[in-house]
Amino acid sequence: MIASTMNGARYPERYFDEWNLGDRFVTGSAAITREEALEFAQRYDPQPFHLDDAAGAASVFGGLAASGWMTGAVTMRLIVDSGVMRGPGILGAGIDDLRWLAPVYPGDVLRVEGEVIGLSPNPNGKRLGRMRVRLVTINQDGTPVMTQIANLSAVMRPATRFDQLTALA
Amino acid sequence: MIASTMNGARYPERYFDEWNLGDRFVTGSAAITREEALEFAQRYDPQPFHLDDAAGAASVFGGLAASGWMTGAVTMRLIVDSGVMRGPGILGAGIDDLRWLAPVYPGDVLRVEGEVIGLSPNPNGKRLGRMRVRLVTINQDGTPVMTQIANLSAVMRPATRFDQLTALA
Repeated sequence: MIASTMNGARYPERYFDEWNLGDRFVTGSAAITREEALEFAQRYDPQPFHLDDAAGAASVFGGLAASGWMTGAVTMRLIVDSGVMRGPGILGAGIDDLRWLAPVYPGDVLRVEGEVIGLSPNPNGKRLGRMRVRLVTINQDGTPVMTQIANLSAVMRPATRFDQLTALA
Repeated sequence: MIASTMNGARYPERYFDEWNLGDRFVTGSAAITREEALEFAQRYDPQPFHLDDAAGAASVFGGLAASGWMTGAVTMRLIVDSGVMRGPGILGAGIDDLRWLAPVYPGDVLRVEGEVIGLSPNPNGKRLGRMRVRLVTINQDGTPVMTQIANLSAVMRPATRFDQLTALA
């Protein structure tokens, strides 16, 4: 299991309307254990350089490296634990421009930094907004190991009686 | 553990030079068990609709749904098991345009279809080529549940003595 330094208490729930362009956040951190890196690789990415020290050393990674999909999964866990995406209804629709920039090795400690780079109220009439959030996963040396842009769908604040009357005016 | 229908014996190893634009492939299939969907969610994506039947039923998914990152991880496993990406040296550099199109539920059976949509010999002088591969993860009903474009770096065939002499001519 991941030992994350947070339990979701840090950031409050937010409706789409409560986000602003340029809002930033940072998650807690999680250590990548050798045991978990090997278990993830055995299940989901059984390539030699993720499973075997000698194969890792002989690869471009220069050592046993965690699966890039594990880095993605741990990034998700850190975001969930931080509570930052814990709105009344917020869902991932997709990912753009994901890049694995540097290897992740057992013993590394990862955190995630985020910035809201796009906000668009959904034009289809539903009370959902689209958010684009740039996420950078960073190791203990400050090296970015993975970047991505998350496309999220977030529930907008329910219309108040005042909003309804204003809309009718 | 995933029960994949393949063990890597289907596709031969290929150098970058042995791929052509429009090449297609299909992997074996893997069943998503409830146990594994819950375990993945507990570790990496502990949101209520991935953990609890009632929360799933109340969500947009209409039932307990697997984490989208698990769909990505299972997709990786199917590709590794198919052997199609098992070149002498082929690595994922990143992902573009990943979209989760439909929920994945416990009991679903996934497969992956791929098509080579980009091939560019690396201009930096190394014997590496860049491949872009469109991947579609499809359930037992033929419904695409996830699409993405994988950006891969693949080793080119070593220069032969003939190549070297030709280059010098």
